[in-house]
Formats: sequence, C-alpha cells, structure tokens
Amino acid sequence: MSQRIRFNAFQMNAGSHQSPGLWRHPRDRSHRYTDPAHWVELARLLERGRFDGVFIADVLGVYDVYGSSVAAALRGGVQVPINDPLALVPLMAHATEHLGFGVTCAVTGEHPYPFARRLSTLDHLSGGRVGWNIVTGYLDSAARNFGRTQQLGHDERYDLADEYLEVVYKLWEHSWQDDAVRRDREAGVYVDPDRVRPIAHRGCHYDVPGIHLCEPSSQRTPVLYQAGTSPRGLRFAGQHAECVFVSGPAIAVIRRYVDEVRSAVVAAGRAAEDVLIYAQALVIVGETEAEARALHQELLDHIDPQAALALLSGWTGVDFSRTPADAPIEYVDTPAGRTALGSFSAADPSRRWTVGEAARFIGLGGRGPVLVGSPQQVADQIEEWADATGIDGFNLTYALSHETMERVVELLVPELQRRGRYATDYTPGTLRHKLFRRGPRLPASHTARTLAPGGPAAA
Amino acid sequence: MSQRIRFNAFQMNAGSHQSPGLWRHPRDRSHRYTDPAHWVELARLLERGRFDGVFIADVLGVYDVYGSSVAAALRGGVQVPINDPLALVPLMAHATEHLGFGVTCAVTGEHPYPFARRLSTLDHLSGGRVGWNIVTGYLDSAARNFGRTQQLGHDERYDLADEYLEVVYKLWEHSWQDDAVRRDREAGVYVDPDRVRPIAHRGCHYDVPGIHLCEPSSQRTPVLYQAGTSPRGLRFAGQHAECVFVSGPAIAVIRRYVDEVRSAVVAAGRAAEDVLIYAQALVIVGETEAEARALHQELLDHIDPQAALALLSGWTGVDFSRTPADAPIEYVDTPAGRTALGSFSAADPSRRWTVGEAARFIGLGGRGPVLVGSPQQVADQIEEWADATGIDGFNLTYALSHETMERVVELLVPELQRRGRYATDYTPGTLRHKLFRRGPRLPASHTARTLAPGGPAAA
Repeated sequence: MSQRIRFNAFQMNAGSHQSPGLWRHPRDRSHRYTDPAHWVELARLLERGRFDGVFIADVLGVYDVYGSSVAAALRGGVQVPINDPLALVPLMAHATEHLGFGVTCAVTGEHPYPFARRLSTLDHLSGGRVGWNIVTGYLDSAARNFGRTQQLGHDERYDLADEYLEVVYKLWEHSWQDDAVRRDREAGVYVDPDRVRPIAHRGCHYDVPGIHLCEPSSQRTPVLYQAGTSPRGLRFAGQHAECVFVSGPAIAVIRRYVDEVRSAVVAAGRAAEDVLIYAQALVIVGETEAEARALHQELLDHIDPQAALALLSGWTGVDFSRTPADAPIEYVDTPAGRTALGSFSAADPSRRWTVGEAARFIGLGGRGPVLVGSPQQVADQIEEWADATGIDGFNLTYALSHETMERVVELLVPELQRRGRYATDYTPGTLRHKLFRRGPRLPASHTARTLAPGGPAAA
Repeated sequence: MSQRIRFNAFQMNAGSHQSPGLWRHPRDRSHRYTDPAHWVELARLLERGRFDGVFIADVLGVYDVYGSSVAAALRGGVQVPINDPLALVPLMAHATEHLGFGVTCAVTGEHPYPFARRLSTLDHLSGGRVGWNIVTGYLDSAARNFGRTQQLGHDERYDLADEYLEVVYKLWEHSWQDDAVRRDREAGVYVDPDRVRPIAHRGCHYDVPGIHLCEPSSQRTPVLYQAGTSPRGLRFAGQHAECVFVSGPAIAVIRRYVDEVRSAVVAAGRAAEDVLIYAQALVIVGETEAEARALHQELLDHIDPQAALALLSGWTGVDFSRTPADAPIEYVDTPAGRTALGSFSAADPSRRWTVGEAARFIGLGGRGPVLVGSPQQVADQIEEWADATGIDGFNLTYALSHETMERVVELLVPELQRRGRYATDYTPGTLRHKLFRRGPRLPASHTARTLAPGGPAAA
C-alpha cells in the first residue's frame, strides 16, 4: 500500500491569514475569529475529517515594510488585528478528543520559564495533544515593541533559540521524575521532593536555577514543529524538529526542501522518517470540475494584490510598494538569510516571475500550490504532489473560512479514504502517538532527553 | 433595603490553594485541576449560584523560604505543582454566559506588549467578562528563575507596575478608535488606518512604539483587581483598582483595610464607591448546625500545620521552620513592607498569636475567617461581617474542591436571596456592567483614559 497522506489545517487567530483579500468574499466568515463558537465548529469539523491537527500561525508584530507604514496592512487586514493563539487551544481541545494543536510561539516573545508552564498547562488540559511551532520571529516591528531597535540577526536568533530550548527541555524532561507526584492522602505526601530536581541552568541568555512549576504532562515536551529552510534553520530542524512545514509554488521546490530536511535530520544522527514533513497547499474542490473552476474564478476575483505585497514585503523585508508590477522579481535586493523570493525563481526556471505575478500567486493560498478540481482530480494532484516530493502530508490553508475546510472534509477526504491513502480513524493516545505510533515522550535519543541533568534533588 | 452582598470564588490552577493539607481529605477533588471538566463543572456551579466571578490566584515561583528549601512545599503540595491560570478562562467562559474571571498576572512575569494581547484575546473570547488582578510578585524564587538574583524592592516593583500599566492602558484605550474596524467588503477596507495610532511609549523600563495588535474588545481594559495593603500598594489601588481583595482574621482588621482603601480611592480623586471590596472567607455550611460543626471538625483534622507554615514563610519571607510552635508571632523579624504578620496581632489586640496558632488558623481557609453553621447562622455572620466592615462581598475560598462551593450554592445563596441580600439574576452585559451597572469601558475619568495619547495615526 502507498504511504498514508496526512492533513493539517493552517490557521491564525486573526481576521485574515494566507489569502489576503478573501475576507471580502460574501461567504467568508473569518471575522468570527473573536467568537469561541467559530473555533469549536472548526475543531469538530477537522476531527470529523481526521486531520492530524490545527496549526495556529502567529506574528507578534505588524507588516509595516510595504511603504514603510502599517497602513496597507491595516487597510487590507493583513494578519492584523491578531489575537493570542494559545487561548484557542483549551477551547478546541475540550470540544474534541483526538485533534492535535500546533501553536506558534517565538522564542523572542516570552521568557522560557513561564513559557514552559504555559505549554505544560495546555498539554495537561488537552490530554497530551499539544505541539509547539518553534519560531525565532522575522518582523522587526515585533522586536521594536519589545524595546529592541531591530530583530536580532538571523543566526543570532537561532543561537538564542538553542539556549531557549535547552532551558525548556530541562524543565520539561529533567526536573520531575515520572513517579515524583505521589498524592498519598494517608502519608500526607503530595510530591516526593527526592524526585524533583532544580535545573540549575546558567547560560548566556538565561539563568534558571529552579524546578519546573508543573507536574509532568503526558507528552512532557510538546510535539516539536519547525519551518526554517535556511542552512542554520535546517540544522536546527535536523536536531530538534518532529514535524516540519515547508512551502513553495512547485513540486521541484518542495522536493529540494524535503531532501534538505531529511539530510539535516540524518546529519543530526536521527532517522530520516523521524520527521513528518507537511507542505502548504490550498484545495479548491467541487462536486464537479466545473463547480470547482467556477469557485476558483470567484476566489481569484477577490484577491487583493496590494495586501499580498504587504505580506510579501513583511516576509522578505523588501518594500514592494515602489516596484512596478511587471518588474522581474529577481531584480529586487533581498537581505541575507531571507529565502521567500528564491522559491519563485526556482518554481519554474524557464521563466521569470514578475512582482505582479507573485502578488496574484500569494493572493490566493499564500506560498503553496492551489489544487483545483473534482474530488477525483484533486485527489490525483494530492497523490502526485505527495509521491513526487516525499512529503508526509499537507498543511492546508483556507480561502474562505470555514467553507474551504468543509469542502475538504466532505468531498476530498472520503475520496482519499476510498483510495486507502488517508486515515479512517485516529491512533489512540497522545498527539505523538497519533503521528508516530510511539510515545508519549520524545524518543530517548532526542537531544532534549540526552541533556546533562541539573543540580541535586530538591529534598 | 440593605446593600447587596457579592460572592467571588477564590481558586488557583493548582492541586491545593488556601487550605494546605485539605487535599488529603477523601472527598477533596482538587487533584482534578489538570482536567478541563473540573473547571467547566465549577464555572457552571458558580454561575448557578450567581457568583460575580472566579478569581484565579497565581504564583510564578515556589514557597522555598521555609527551611530554605522547596522540600516542605513539595511534600505538602503547597501551591506546587501549579499551572498557568490564563488557560482556564477560554474554557470556563465558553461554558457560561455571565460569570466573570479575575486572573492574576504579575507585571514582572511578562513584557506588557504580548500581555496586552493575551488579555484582549480573553476579553474577546469571553464577551467582555475578564478582569486582571495586578500583582507585583512577592516570591524571590520567581525572580531568580527570570535571571534576577532577587525580587525588586517593594516600592521599586510598584514603580515598574506604574509604567507597565501606562503601556497596557495606551494599547487598550488609545491605539484603536471605536470605529477603526470597518470590515467593509465592498470598499475593501478592513481597518481604517486613520483611526489607529501607534502608542509611541518611551519610558524607563519599556519602549513600545507600535500599535496594539488587537481590535478593541468590549471592555478594552479588563476590570482591574488589586490586593495591596501597604501604603504604596494602597496608593496604587486608589488610582487604578476597580475591585480590591482584602484578607484578615477579624472584623476590625478588615474594617481598617476598607477605610484605608476607600480613603486612597478618594485621595486619588475618585468616588469611594467606585471600588468594590471583597474579603476572603471560608464558609462551612450544613443543613443543620450539627452537620456544619461535624464537617468543620473533619476539616480541622486534615490541617497540615507544616504546610501552612511553608505558606506563611513564603508570604512573609520569614523562615518559620526554626521557630517553636508556642513562640509569639510578633517576636519574629519581618522584612520591611511585608504585612501578613501584622494582621495576626491586630486581629485580637487582647492576646498574642503563637506560631502554632497562626499555622492552624492558616491551615483552614488561609488568611480569612471561617464561618460555620446552618444556612441561617452563616447568613447572619455574612451579614454581620459585611455590615460591620463596609465590604461589598466575599472572596470565598474552598476547603474541599468542589464540595465547599456546592454547599455555598445549594444552602447559603438561597438563604441570602430570601433575605434580599443576594442577586437572583445577573445584570446583562460585560463584567463591568454586572459589577457597576455601567460600562463596558472604564469611566472616562479613570487614569487609563486620561493618559496623553501617543503619536500620529498609522496612515
């Protein structure tokens, strides 16, 4: 049997995410993001569709590179206004039994000590269904609001991330032994102090002498997600990540990322299949091809190219407000370490993308392909993409909230199930069990578990 | 008609809160704190009992003053393990319609920029039912894990808090105009950039140039809770607080606090009744006096005096592990600015409390009175306390989770309702409406709203 294909839903606690402008479509409901019912409905829908999880993206800043102002982002609703992603997890977890949650939190956004407690809490409340998408942040606007004049340098951010992970790994994996919590009513012992250890961390960025505040949750360390494709990001993913998100407009781009990620994982001494790779895609599926094509055209008519360029400007640090729409995209200078532009030229080496083409491409579906057709046609494309790239699944964006996901669940998932390429039920247990059929903890060989322990026990 | 009496539930996302040792009672269920159902049940119960809200205490450190070690706290389950309080709000809010939520977050725990977004998010998801208990932190152990050698000085913490509030007030109140969000599908305008302003904050502790990331929630600034009774804490409460929590073992102590709080409010140019004051109490109510007395004895039998002293040592910074149980409590040195000990001598000036008496007192109900009896008897005591102290209501702790609150809701609330002293229904609207019959925003004269605005609009 061919390999199973997995789906994740790519979301954001905001009025608009990867398809700026589509909020103007009359059937879009993404303005309901402040309503808990919006998220509970989504979670139940995705669980019915046997999605691995919902992946909640985040930024802690605004897209203010375009025209050196936040005005275009505000006008176009480009990932602003945006709310805290963590608050959605307890809500959606309580409404479901199996769905996983990958939450984006930047290491530059919070001190690791309270952060470790936040994630342990979510792992407790969800019964071990939490994942953490480790990001280092890419918006200078976020850094400025934390009192820094600009973002740390790209590699410097990864050095900080390395130490940040060391701290949270020590708290999650090395502070409390499995049998530390006794809750012995007769003996009057809640926790055995001999089985709890202060982590005694002293580093360049953080000093954390104490114990973790939480008792161990079932997964301890949440499932680790990552998305970097720079050399330093790949090395980081190779060492740490259990799931990796990639995005690009063509099979060749994704194939290269997949090879690079798996090589980085092997270079870090792990097995290539220790990492699940999901590629971003937008599915536009109809009962018939004609219906799907009509819907596609309707969606294309709602693209907001200026908003798309505000997004692209934020991702790349390049201000596209003064570039003519027909300028070839390679002529624009890119700051070092930023890779979003490269993927456009790599997408189809036989031609050059113009700024206008990139804007329309990003305007519907973000940085991934748009797969259009009947259930059979989309299933064919899904299989082709999966088999030609070596990915494990897709990180599916929406154009219309929640209609896009409803169509996937109602029309595409049953077709893939008929073909034996998609799960008909969940593996019992934690998110890690569902993804890897082992767990609930990280493998004993993972760098989080082989760290040197902290100080003596608390007793 | 006499004044209405209000109830809040005093909780913590931990295995034990104000009555250390009571988790050993066979009927206690506080070990379920990691289970979402535990909190959903509580929220529904409290809403049935027309409680104003649930107040979630927090510490971001451990009680390691007693014996200079965390061992006693771990053994006794003294507010450790402890999970993040914020994660409970989306869960409980979604299960209720009216219940309010007061969440404790220390200004030393997180940068104000992401914190403002967290609270706006909770205010959105709860439909305007969020309050924030502003604390400056009192545990050195927390400070150390943030890389500081010890807590900032007491007054220094309040200076930091003043600036912290300035930042979040600017974000909540002054960044987005009421009509900034247009979501105009035809015009393609999500937000009008002319109606959003960067706050341009430059201060001693924080530089925050940008806009708030969230669109205005219904209350904008959450209802502001505070609990300080030091001179500096009172000045702070007088200027900022809408609700104040006090605790002490006797009417005379509470009466003095109430007078001080109302004077501080008036000194800050506000009306004395602009602040609601809740006093901590534990209610042990039975169908009959005999049942209540038997239950009281059962609970007394489960007090853990050593755990209580670990708690008292953390509150006061004084290590009680080497003090004989019969030593008078005034003879112990107290660091400046710490007031917990004073209330014991003030409780009953005719006698001195010993360390052992204080331990037994704290061991059941924490720092407030224990009111025992039939519904009529407890209602009499509740009325007496309320009328003699001038408080607006009670912050009710539990001895057994959730049995204590079930008894209050089933037995005491109906009796107070019969007497016309307790609400039979909620005021419609946000938490601020329910508390003050006005809102949803802070009064226009509140310091948060009279701050100087930031820079020019984002456009």
